[in-house]
Amino acid sequence: MIQEIDGGITAPQGFRAAGVACGIKRRSATAAAAPLDLALIVTEGPVSAAAVFTTNKAVAAPIQISREHLARSGGRAAAIVVNAGCANACTGDAGLAVARQMAEAAADAAGCAPHEVLVASTGVIGMPLNIERVRAGVADASAALSTSGSDNAMRAIMTTDPFPKGKAVSVTTADGRTFAVGGIAKGSGMIEPRMATMLGFLTTDAKVAPAVLQAALRRVADETFNAITVDGECSTNDCVFLLASGASGVTIERDDDPALLAGLRAVSEFLAREIVRGGEGATKLVTVRITGAASHEDAWLAARTIANSPLVKTAIHGGDPNWGRLVAAAGRSGAEFVLDRATVAVGPVQMFVSGVPHDERAGEAAAVMQQKEMTVSVDLGTGGGHSATMWTCDFSAEYVRINAEYRT
Amino acid sequence: MIQEIDGGITAPQGFRAAGVACGIKRRSATAAAAPLDLALIVTEGPVSAAAVFTTNKAVAAPIQISREHLARSGGRAAAIVVNAGCANACTGDAGLAVARQMAEAAADAAGCAPHEVLVASTGVIGMPLNIERVRAGVADASAALSTSGSDNAMRAIMTTDPFPKGKAVSVTTADGRTFAVGGIAKGSGMIEPRMATMLGFLTTDAKVAPAVLQAALRRVADETFNAITVDGECSTNDCVFLLASGASGVTIERDDDPALLAGLRAVSEFLAREIVRGGEGATKLVTVRITGAASHEDAWLAARTIANSPLVKTAIHGGDPNWGRLVAAAGRSGAEFVLDRATVAVGPVQMFVSGVPHDERAGEAAAVMQQKEMTVSVDLGTGGGHSATMWTCDFSAEYVRINAEYRT
Repeated sequence: MIQEIDGGITAPQGFRAAGVACGIKRRSATAAAAPLDLALIVTEGPVSAAAVFTTNKAVAAPIQISREHLARSGGRAAAIVVNAGCANACTGDAGLAVARQMAEAAADAAGCAPHEVLVASTGVIGMPLNIERVRAGVADASAALSTSGSDNAMRAIMTTDPFPKGKAVSVTTADGRTFAVGGIAKGSGMIEPRMATMLGFLTTDAKVAPAVLQAALRRVADETFNAITVDGECSTNDCVFLLASGASGVTIERDDDPALLAGLRAVSEFLAREIVRGGEGATKLVTVRITGAASHEDAWLAARTIANSPLVKTAIHGGDPNWGRLVAAAGRSGAEFVLDRATVAVGPVQMFVSGVPHDERAGEAAAVMQQKEMTVSVDLGTGGGHSATMWTCDFSAEYVRINAEYRT
Repeated sequence: MIQEIDGGITAPQGFRAAGVACGIKRRSATAAAAPLDLALIVTEGPVSAAAVFTTNKAVAAPIQISREHLARSGGRAAAIVVNAGCANACTGDAGLAVARQMAEAAADAAGCAPHEVLVASTGVIGMPLNIERVRAGVADASAALSTSGSDNAMRAIMTTDPFPKGKAVSVTTADGRTFAVGGIAKGSGMIEPRMATMLGFLTTDAKVAPAVLQAALRRVADETFNAITVDGECSTNDCVFLLASGASGVTIERDDDPALLAGLRAVSEFLAREIVRGGEGATKLVTVRITGAASHEDAWLAARTIANSPLVKTAIHGGDPNWGRLVAAAGRSGAEFVLDRATVAVGPVQMFVSGVPHDERAGEAAAVMQQKEMTVSVDLGTGGGHSATMWTCDFSAEYVRINAEYRT
């Protein structure tokens, strides 16, 4: 059983967090206070840790350091340190040194070894990260750490996200034991206007071995954080970290444990959908559902192509139930596709059934498309049993405005 | 030697063409006359023919029929018939029957067998094509056929293209013989607002066997018509046809003949670039140049990812020399990429050299980006010798407006 609770990443036992301002984000002329821009999450000692990273080959320094640390510690960590406002990406050897120093500062604060710290950054690419500000921020954050610190941490990792994103759930296992899962995330906002970065930080007080935790995170991330798109762009800094303190005393032995997966999924799917809802220029949250695929890969290929199609996304923005664009995107995706057995629906309204258009239902479908949330479904017509679900947003002129604006 | 000449597809000897109005395109309230919407191109008897088709699996009826005819005739054709205003796509068995009847009407007009006719359509998807109007149009076009008919044919294949596209060249071989190559094309415009379709029709009076012609067209199309993008969408109706009349008496024996390739390339590259220049909402024509790739496939993967990246295209629209977005797009493309040996340039201005940013050159690069045409170059830093060139346009709010507008 899953029940929503308060507290974000500090809802699970064994975690403290803080978010502070250290001067990395620029202060706006009208702001009453400097914006929060550094978050620290610590455990009571090294615990099981797992991570998924960007597949971009232009990886930022913090990604390289976090990968190195997880390998060296054998999947254990005692702290996560994150800054916003500067991505520490495309910064060469100097950037790697700064990411290491950032980990060392957090290690001092958490009383652990530097390789037991995971590091993340988000913000402007190609700009050096000021390590003195980071050190001051880590010291302040260390003093502010608390079991109610999730809210400030959640705000400190934002860039131009329209709203903060956090969630926690209590999970009751089949035999009546209870543990918690919490998470915070930032989504696709821009700075000056550089690319978006997705960051997610999850905690649980279940007791899980590192290898099991990693496998469970991979499984859940593929269906949540890796199943969303705003514009098909994959950043140099994307990462999701998961720490398991074990403080609940509930031991999870297997990576397919239904309680663990359900808890992780509840938090991750919520955060992933919130990231899309807060996507640049987004006005609608769209679930893309593919069925009838010949293979798992085909289902995801078709879902990804539709979810990133500019013509589909502009039609959704305009409220046009344009099934022709969905058919064309599925057809060009590379997935096996049988036109005269394919079906396209907007919400519950089937616009194209086994190759036959039903434009007489356009009014009904257009009404569905006026809503803020909707599902578009495509059956690829192969008779195969594979399916996929992704979340995307519409494509607005505001997206163009945000990203075309000359940086100042 | 290549020299530009007048006459489009009727510049080469042995071709007549016409463009007429037959009522498939809707007449606007303000138009003085009905818009041209049917083109006919005929030879003096069956000649060598070649074609490249959309890779979309949701193929339209005319594509299926043209493929079938080329296979049956062994690469020979005596006529091409094209309508605009209705794509005859997603129209099932009835649509196939109409495409066959369209070929039969053109065969009567050209005095050839139906399977010696190539058929193409562009316009609204999922709408039946009125065969009576097509038949009347073919009869009118047949009466209007002339060796100066390219201009009307060029206009008859347009949908909402902002300008017509035609070109012809005279090619002089190394030993002083002369033949001609002509072409017309339509690009990415929308109707009511359905997806774009690219159509290209090429003619030459060189004498070329079907298999050689097909290999030469494939080679040239891959570097021209297949090297452009407006929004990464591949239509259900895309096709390029090439007919070789042999009327010049110049025989071409090999598909790598430099004169034939140069003539085809001159016409095809011009038409392909014109399609991008006339892309929806486009204000800039951008050449994407990739070097230093580990393989041919990698070079094209990186070029295609950059040319379709919303963040790159919006930065270009805004005149922002945002090398970070080019690095990130190359990095996520799947191509081998070595960040600390990669180089990014805007025009001649190197913004990122072997992993080091040069933001002090941003002003100089921004000046390049104010121009209507520019080149962005990325060296992937692998030390490999492979390269690729693609053409794309910027991404504007106007693109969103055109494609989000509710159909009427």
